[in-house]
Amino acid sequence: MTTGVRRRMGVDERQQQLIGIALELFSRRSPDEVSIDEIASAAGISRPLVYHYFPGKLSLYEAALTRASEDLAGRFVEPREGPLGARLLRVMHRFFDFVDEHGPGFSALMRGGPAVGSSRTNALVDSVRQAAYVQILAHLGITEPPARLELVIRSWISLVESTALIWLDGRRIPRRELEVQLVHDFAALSAVSAVHDDEMATLLRRVLRDEPGDGPFGDLAARLISLAS
Amino acid sequence: MTTGVRRRMGVDERQQQLIGIALELFSRRSPDEVSIDEIASAAGISRPLVYHYFPGKLSLYEAALTRASEDLAGRFVEPREGPLGARLLRVMHRFFDFVDEHGPGFSALMRGGPAVGSSRTNALVDSVRQAAYVQILAHLGITEPPARLELVIRSWISLVESTALIWLDGRRIPRRELEVQLVHDFAALSAVSAVHDDEMATLLRRVLRDEPGDGPFGDLAARLISLAS
Repeated sequence: MTTGVRRRMGVDERQQQLIGIALELFSRRSPDEVSIDEIASAAGISRPLVYHYFPGKLSLYEAALTRASEDLAGRFVEPREGPLGARLLRVMHRFFDFVDEHGPGFSALMRGGPAVGSSRTNALVDSVRQAAYVQILAHLGITEPPARLELVIRSWISLVESTALIWLDGRRIPRRELEVQLVHDFAALSAVSAVHDDEMATLLRRVLRDEPGDGPFGDLAARLISLAS
Repeated sequence: MTTGVRRRMGVDERQQQLIGIALELFSRRSPDEVSIDEIASAAGISRPLVYHYFPGKLSLYEAALTRASEDLAGRFVEPREGPLGARLLRVMHRFFDFVDEHGPGFSALMRGGPAVGSSRTNALVDSVRQAAYVQILAHLGITEPPARLELVIRSWISLVESTALIWLDGRRIPRRELEVQLVHDFAALSAVSAVHDDEMATLLRRVLRDEPGDGPFGDLAARLISLAS
């Protein structure tokens, strides 16, 4: 299957190279528009050799998505120290870095890309959502979340996704503003839940107790008071 | 193709009947689990005759989805009179009625059902989102929305979707509470946007000016003040 020259790169190394090339191309154009020929050409190998490592475009796409999912899930990991608002803001910076780096690929995936509907693709997207959910629960120091807290966190994660997609469509609002705004949105959705439920109110008070006046949550409170007056 | 007895029902009438039966079955079980045999049996006709009206399960699914999409989009239509909060609350009641009536079908579609990835299915889901967006803009009396207003409305619509999906997964929170909470979330996301942008602040002040103290927005303000004290 391979010549002596091609053999220089091991199977795993070659697969990783092709995944890297695919992700690089998907970061500039939708996966739909990227052909196996292009990937082969960028790797300096033949089209049949690409198929030797990945039996079809879907399998290369899924491998690329797996690596991107692990990367993205990792960006929600944050040391559990200091106020929650500042932690969430650092997570949002890293999340938007990812969205910025993977624009067209991220957009195609979330809007219904070439492999949407494949159970493997859906499972990968869900695994990132679940990783983000577990991280945020851990930051709150909670292991058995009540239904209303689960709703706030999961629906906020979906708000983060949709905000990123809308941002990618024209980038009309500075991303730094959206990063802060999403942290503020987390506080706002938590506050709405807290006015409906005593358990959420207790949790919110506990989180806010440790927030400094100059953190994102303190900043929101000051801005809201100024807006209301 | 048809016997004399079967001819009694016209083509359009028979198609509408089959769509109705499909929607009824999809309201109790995921479309994945509903067979053409079952639909034929519920309609009292043969399996080949179902294929005469719809060349495959996907085409029947898409026809059912088209009718459901029109129904759902219609639920966002609301007379443009009275305070915005009360209008949004009525829309949320009707939206949750729909979600309640179409549970498994709605869930399967939004989570990646049998026809997800089909461009027709994606277009139908997007058409409902767009109809909801246009309705809300009209309620705000705005024809050329700034980017930040578009973001608030579109991201709120995605929050409504994800909240409904989470609710369907176990129904652990009363839907009436979620309906009010989503209207409150709209106000909260608008307020967060308003603390970042003067144009949004002006718009929010204009909307709130017409809100009565006993409407959903007045209720939220009173509850937040009580929570903060």
